[in-house]
Amino acid sequence: MTLQAVLDRIDSDLDASLSRLFELLRVPSISTDPAFADDCQTAADWLVKDLQSLGVTASARPTPGHPMVIGHVGDTGPHLMFYGHYDVQPVDPLELWDRDPFDPEIQDTPGGKVIRGRGTSDDKGQLMTFVEACRAWIAVNGELPCQITFFFEGEEESGSPSLVPFLKENADELKADICLICDTGLFDHDTPAITTMLRGLLGEELTITAADKDLHSGSFGGAARNPIRVLCDIVDGLHDDTGRITVPGFYDDVPEIAPAVMAQWDGLGFDADGFLGSVDLSEPAGEQGRSVLEMIWSRPTCEVNGITGGYSGDGFKTVLPSQATAKISFRLVGQQDPFKIRDAFRAYVRSKLPSDCTVEFIDHGAGGASVMPTDDPAFEKARLALSDEWPKPAAFVGAGGSIPIAGHFQEILGVNSMLIGFGKDDDQLHSPNEKYDLRSFHKGIRSWARVLDALTR
Amino acid sequence: MTLQAVLDRIDSDLDASLSRLFELLRVPSISTDPAFADDCQTAADWLVKDLQSLGVTASARPTPGHPMVIGHVGDTGPHLMFYGHYDVQPVDPLELWDRDPFDPEIQDTPGGKVIRGRGTSDDKGQLMTFVEACRAWIAVNGELPCQITFFFEGEEESGSPSLVPFLKENADELKADICLICDTGLFDHDTPAITTMLRGLLGEELTITAADKDLHSGSFGGAARNPIRVLCDIVDGLHDDTGRITVPGFYDDVPEIAPAVMAQWDGLGFDADGFLGSVDLSEPAGEQGRSVLEMIWSRPTCEVNGITGGYSGDGFKTVLPSQATAKISFRLVGQQDPFKIRDAFRAYVRSKLPSDCTVEFIDHGAGGASVMPTDDPAFEKARLALSDEWPKPAAFVGAGGSIPIAGHFQEILGVNSMLIGFGKDDDQLHSPNEKYDLRSFHKGIRSWARVLDALTR
Repeated sequence: MTLQAVLDRIDSDLDASLSRLFELLRVPSISTDPAFADDCQTAADWLVKDLQSLGVTASARPTPGHPMVIGHVGDTGPHLMFYGHYDVQPVDPLELWDRDPFDPEIQDTPGGKVIRGRGTSDDKGQLMTFVEACRAWIAVNGELPCQITFFFEGEEESGSPSLVPFLKENADELKADICLICDTGLFDHDTPAITTMLRGLLGEELTITAADKDLHSGSFGGAARNPIRVLCDIVDGLHDDTGRITVPGFYDDVPEIAPAVMAQWDGLGFDADGFLGSVDLSEPAGEQGRSVLEMIWSRPTCEVNGITGGYSGDGFKTVLPSQATAKISFRLVGQQDPFKIRDAFRAYVRSKLPSDCTVEFIDHGAGGASVMPTDDPAFEKARLALSDEWPKPAAFVGAGGSIPIAGHFQEILGVNSMLIGFGKDDDQLHSPNEKYDLRSFHKGIRSWARVLDALTR
Repeated sequence: MTLQAVLDRIDSDLDASLSRLFELLRVPSISTDPAFADDCQTAADWLVKDLQSLGVTASARPTPGHPMVIGHVGDTGPHLMFYGHYDVQPVDPLELWDRDPFDPEIQDTPGGKVIRGRGTSDDKGQLMTFVEACRAWIAVNGELPCQITFFFEGEEESGSPSLVPFLKENADELKADICLICDTGLFDHDTPAITTMLRGLLGEELTITAADKDLHSGSFGGAARNPIRVLCDIVDGLHDDTGRITVPGFYDDVPEIAPAVMAQWDGLGFDADGFLGSVDLSEPAGEQGRSVLEMIWSRPTCEVNGITGGYSGDGFKTVLPSQATAKISFRLVGQQDPFKIRDAFRAYVRSKLPSDCTVEFIDHGAGGASVMPTDDPAFEKARLALSDEWPKPAAFVGAGGSIPIAGHFQEILGVNSMLIGFGKDDDQLHSPNEKYDLRSFHKGIRSWARVLDALTR
């Protein structure tokens, strides 16, 4: 049987697969920091070369930001597109890492062997599960079972500024029957998941300016406006006492989840205490009257991701600063329009601005939520294929993280996406000591072989 | 006449006085940053050598922090102590400086010639006015007219951690009839001031911790506690809508200013619009119903001097941070007890802390307000001497800045202080492009010669 031969090849080639992944992990392709632009190019070039070694016609396409890696192979059968991203998050605070984030290694942990390093789980390790599945398939069968377009982005962690223009300019080339995206997680250790609801993301940075220079808080304190206090008032006012977001009209396009879906979610036996307990928390901090699963899958949020103003070095400085800045993100659901929300947010901020203060905004990207058509038979085929690989049946789930690409593929290319990934809640995404279970990498490769087989049989 | 000869000598020696000041200004003695500890020692050593050149028995006394420079000269007549500080504020943001903060120069400005550089006004330039007055006096008369103890601190900008223990250990040596402190300002360009009311200062740093690691705001946002939001709630709650501070009991020991003093202040013709307008502000931001002069001289304040949490680099990072930190200072007046206020502040913070959050505090110093006995005849003598030097008569005024040393001298040594200084509101203390008017330096030296004469005649 062809599939079994491919799975056997995957098993026997695992060490070589890991060596290849480690080469990619060693490139510090931090997309949000301009200091690492060359490294992003290096990662893109590495992927082009690796795809070419599989017989894929691949190239790194320049953009105003980091390149897109595009590859095409095959000319018959269903046409799949595969998406992953080769850029990674910054690594600060570096002192909290146990080792160099870009010197990956396999480590033994109480939970099993893990691959430790920045980008292992988000998203280089996941991206390579699909590439390695293709490599094994070709090794056994000489060619892939269908047409495949590879699409690797380098700006996913920095708001994807080049993505929409690139999709629009290359829409004809990038058509496919369905897209496979590997940037999500398992539901739990033994239960694979196909994510069919994704929250959108709106990123905003605001800087409040009061006096035209930093002041001495002794000379001016009490009489002069303090922009940190203004900013704290704005941030504090974004939520009411029940945890709801106060931006006018924010909830207008937020749907309630259908009772049947809620019942399915209840049946998953989600361990909310364990989820929060894994990061030393005990009480859900979101909207009153909502379950933790709702909070992270189906409810919109507003979070402050960074705040800075005045003196933050060692010791103390009695400065009354001229400026204070916050980075704020909204996770969006249902039909919430990110541009409408942005306007409403900015209007809210301006309405809270006292005399003598000005505000400047920086746009850090905007993408709406996505809801996938699970009645497409491909979804059920993939779900059964995944169920064959893992101890428990695969589930259709929601996801808290934002992968705006799924929405853009729908809107611009007319292509639906199937989001299948093998990350885990304890992978420390975006945090120090990111890891990816070796089991996720290995069974992830095997999962993609099964899905390829299921969708092309 | 002896005084006139001294004043003439000051005029003719001004260039040499400036050269000496520039040597001291070039030493980056930033006390709050441990990286500059050696520079603080260098500044102390420079002062010891300079005092020794005047025949003063001087030494740099080690402390757990930066050294105290102590010098004694003379054995008859009244015993004056002179206090200044040789440490300076940090210089960030460095990019807002027009030149190297530690490469001072004389610049022509629309307001006249200024000495530009960190520490010119706060406090090296002021400190050297007194030293240069003594140098001129000795050059003319061969010796000083009284006993003088020089006391130069190196930790004034970092909470003076070594000061109280040092005063207690050396109380007998540091007795004097009165202390002269040069770390304050003119009332306005033509009106010198003796500051007789000083606000106290309490410095607190608080760090809120929620989850035990930074989280991905996609995976956890909505469900996990965000310490930045908690911190903003705490900061926002510190003031009510009328600008009053909400910490329980905060105003218990805050006196109202006597109507006669208020009348005197009204007579000063303080230009509140000009004061705020100088930093591009137009409306007083403090307690409703208080004048700007009250806000900065006689009312207590609470300011956030720094805030930090999450990602603040270029671009965007969808992190939900584990921690957020603020540096908060209180200016205290009247009989407010800094230790009682600290306890009340910490209790307030703890009362606002939601579940799953912890708070840690760092103590950045605490000193009460000082009110000086203006009925001591020395105050009137000094006021008249200053009035002789400047276009307008000198005034007894309050000050917004905190110079806890005056309180410590009262409490530990039983010595009252006369605070006379020549800084101006536009000196950009603690800010980029700090300056000291050349006129302030020159007339400051002359002022001290007159005060020395008046207090020892």
